[in-house]
Amino acid sequence: MKSCGIIVEYNPFHNGHLYHAKKARELSGAEVVIAVMSGNFLQRGEPAIIDKWTRAKEALNHGIDLVIELPFAYAVQSADYFAAGGIKLLQALHCDGLCFGTDNQTEMDYEQFGDFVNKNQTEIDQTYQQIKNNGMSYPQQMTEVFRRLYPQNGLDFSSPNHILGLSYAKENAAYEKPMTLYPLKREQAGYHDTNIYQNFASATAIRKAVFSEKLDQIKQVLPEQVAIDLANSATVSWEDYWTLLKYKLISSSITELQEIYQMKEGIEYRLQEAAKTSDSFQNFMEQAKTKRYTWTRLQRLATYILNNVKQQEIENSWNNSHLQVLGFTEQGQHFLREEKKNLALPLVTKVSKRLNSQLALDIRSNQLYQLGNQRILEQSFGRFPIRIS
Amino acid sequence: MKSCGIIVEYNPFHNGHLYHAKKARELSGAEVVIAVMSGNFLQRGEPAIIDKWTRAKEALNHGIDLVIELPFAYAVQSADYFAAGGIKLLQALHCDGLCFGTDNQTEMDYEQFGDFVNKNQTEIDQTYQQIKNNGMSYPQQMTEVFRRLYPQNGLDFSSPNHILGLSYAKENAAYEKPMTLYPLKREQAGYHDTNIYQNFASATAIRKAVFSEKLDQIKQVLPEQVAIDLANSATVSWEDYWTLLKYKLISSSITELQEIYQMKEGIEYRLQEAAKTSDSFQNFMEQAKTKRYTWTRLQRLATYILNNVKQQEIENSWNNSHLQVLGFTEQGQHFLREEKKNLALPLVTKVSKRLNSQLALDIRSNQLYQLGNQRILEQSFGRFPIRIS
Repeated sequence: MKSCGIIVEYNPFHNGHLYHAKKARELSGAEVVIAVMSGNFLQRGEPAIIDKWTRAKEALNHGIDLVIELPFAYAVQSADYFAAGGIKLLQALHCDGLCFGTDNQTEMDYEQFGDFVNKNQTEIDQTYQQIKNNGMSYPQQMTEVFRRLYPQNGLDFSSPNHILGLSYAKENAAYEKPMTLYPLKREQAGYHDTNIYQNFASATAIRKAVFSEKLDQIKQVLPEQVAIDLANSATVSWEDYWTLLKYKLISSSITELQEIYQMKEGIEYRLQEAAKTSDSFQNFMEQAKTKRYTWTRLQRLATYILNNVKQQEIENSWNNSHLQVLGFTEQGQHFLREEKKNLALPLVTKVSKRLNSQLALDIRSNQLYQLGNQRILEQSFGRFPIRIS
Repeated sequence: MKSCGIIVEYNPFHNGHLYHAKKARELSGAEVVIAVMSGNFLQRGEPAIIDKWTRAKEALNHGIDLVIELPFAYAVQSADYFAAGGIKLLQALHCDGLCFGTDNQTEMDYEQFGDFVNKNQTEIDQTYQQIKNNGMSYPQQMTEVFRRLYPQNGLDFSSPNHILGLSYAKENAAYEKPMTLYPLKREQAGYHDTNIYQNFASATAIRKAVFSEKLDQIKQVLPEQVAIDLANSATVSWEDYWTLLKYKLISSSITELQEIYQMKEGIEYRLQEAAKTSDSFQNFMEQAKTKRYTWTRLQRLATYILNNVKQQEIENSWNNSHLQVLGFTEQGQHFLREEKKNLALPLVTKVSKRLNSQLALDIRSNQLYQLGNQRILEQSFGRFPIRIS
C-alpha cells in the first residue's frame, strides 16, 4: 500500500493544512497519508491550542488516514531533532514518501542536498567552527556555511519551514531506504505572517484571532469543524500555565533549576528573577529575553521547566521510541494491519501503566497540559485511537 | 518596662483574641503586650486567611503593642516546635510573662509541670517507648505517659490548646529566667468548635462563614475592622493553592518528593497518586488520608511540599532566628528602643537582599503565598513595620 508521510503540528488545523494533505496524496500518488503530529507541547516551546486528540480527529476528517504522535522528546526541539524524530517514526512505518512545505523561492534538489550533508558532515562542522562566535545568529551562520560549501542553491536558514525541509532531507538521506521527497511550495501566508488572506492564514494569525475572541474573522480559513472546536473546546495558551511556571521558578532552588534540560550559562538566575517580577508569560519572556537566546529557544526552555524535564528523560525517550497511534481512517487501519508485523518500533494503541517508565515524559507532560484548563480530558490512560469511517 | 507575651496566629483576629489581649495585660499588669504571630503559613499546615501584615495591623488596633513574626520553620510545626519557637523569640525579647489560653478543666500549676518535664525527660522518653505502637494515637499515648508519671493533674493531650500550654510550660522552664505564666481559661467556643455563640466563635467557624460568603453571620464575633478586611482584602484558603500543589506533586519525580521535609514511609507515592485523581484540595486530602496520619500532619506535609521545603532549610532557619517586627504601637516602639541593645537575637525591621540566605525559607514562602491571589501585595521587600499611634 503506497504511503506518504507528513510531519505536522496542526496548531490549529487550517485550510493550508487541508491543501498540504491533498497535495501530499496527489504528488505522491499514495493510498494512505500519514501525519506524524506533535502531542500537546510543540516545537516552538508552547502548549498546543487544542489537545492532541481533538487535533487528530480534525486531521482524520480532512485528508489524513493515520495520525502518529511525535513524542515530547522529539517534538519540543530545534529543527534538527524535530526532523530526526519525524523521519524516524515514518521510517519505522516503512513510509514511501515525505511531503513537506517550503518557503524556498528557488527550485532545489532536496535529496541531493541530504546526500551532500551526510557525506560532508565533518567539513560542515569545521566550517561552522571557523565562523561561529562572529556575532551572527545561528540561522545566519548556517546560511554562511552552506553559501561556502554548497553554493548550488541559495539556502536561507532564516525561514523556519525551509530549515525544517533541509533537516528532513538530511535525516532521510541517512536511512538505508530514503523516502521520496515531495517539497510543496507555500503560496500564501508565511510562517510568521499574522495577516489573514482570503482563504488562507498562518496558524499564528488564527491563534491570535482565537485569543482575542475574533473567531468570526477566521471562519473562512478553517474547516467548519475546526471553527466549532475552537469555539467549544478547551483552548489554552502559555498564559494558562503562567502561574505554574512562575511557581516552579520561584519554588525551586538554583541547584534544582540547573538540573533542567538545556539550562545553561547561568540563565537560571535570570529566569528566576524575571519570574518574581512578572505578572504574565508575555511579560516574563520580555524580561528574560537576551540577545543570546531567540524567543523560541527561551520558550522551549520554559516548556522544559514547566514539565520538569531532565536530560536523562529525553535520552530515555529517544531510546524507547514508540509509534503511538492517535487515530485512523479505514484506509489507515488497513495500512496498519498490513505493516503491523514489519514495524521497526513498537506500536502503542493504548497507554497502559505497563508503559509508565518508557513513556514517562509523555504521560507526565500530558497530565501537566491538563492543568491549563479544567475542561481538558485525560490524555493518556483509557484513551483509544480515534476511528473515522 | 513590664511586658507580657502571647503566641498567636489570628486566623483571623476575633473577639476571643481581643479578650485574650486584654486579659494578658490585666493578669500580668504589663505595660506592653507582645504577640509572636505566625506569618503566612500556619501551625496546622494551611495558608493564613489574610496576609500577615493585615493581621498584624488588626492586632495592633486591638490591644497588642508589638507583633513579631514566628518564622515558617517554627510556625508550621507540631506543638513542641511551635512552642519552642514562640518561647525562643519572647525570651530573646526578655519578656516578663506569657499568657496563653487553655481548655483545661482543672486548675494546674504549669510552672511546676514545666520543671517536672525538664527534670524527668529521660523517664518520660522511656515510658513513651514502652507504650508506643499500642494502637493509640500520639495524644492518647502522651496522656497515658503523664497519667503514669505525673498524676497530680488529669492531663488531656487531646485538646490542641492544652497541648500548646503544656509545651509552652516545658520550653519556658528550660530557660535561665522563665517567664511568669498566666494560663487563661477559655469560656466558650472550643478550638474545633464550628458554632457561632453570641459574641464569640472559633476561628474555624469564622473561616467557614467567610468562605461560604456568610459574613453577616459573624459580624458580632469580630471587631468591625476585621469584618471590613475580610470583606475587602484578598482572602485565601488551601483551595487557592490546590493547582500549584497538584502541579508540584505531578511534575516531581519520586526521588524529588523524597527530599521534601518530613516525607517518610513511602507516603510520596500515595500523595502523587491522590494528586492525579483529585480535583480539589479537600478531595485530595480525603484520598490521601490514612489512619497513620492525622489530618493536620498531612496538611503540614502538603505545606512543605507546596513550599518545596528541605530539612536543611528548616535547620538553617532555626540556626538563624531573627526577630522580624511586623508592627508596633507607640508603647511597643518604646519597649523596642529600651531593649534594642540587649536583644538575644538580631532585630529585623526591613527585609533586605542582604538577608536573602538567612531568611530564604520565609522570603520564598511569602512569595508563594502571593500566588494564591493576585491581590496579595509583596510580603517581604520594601515593607516596613506597621505603626499605630
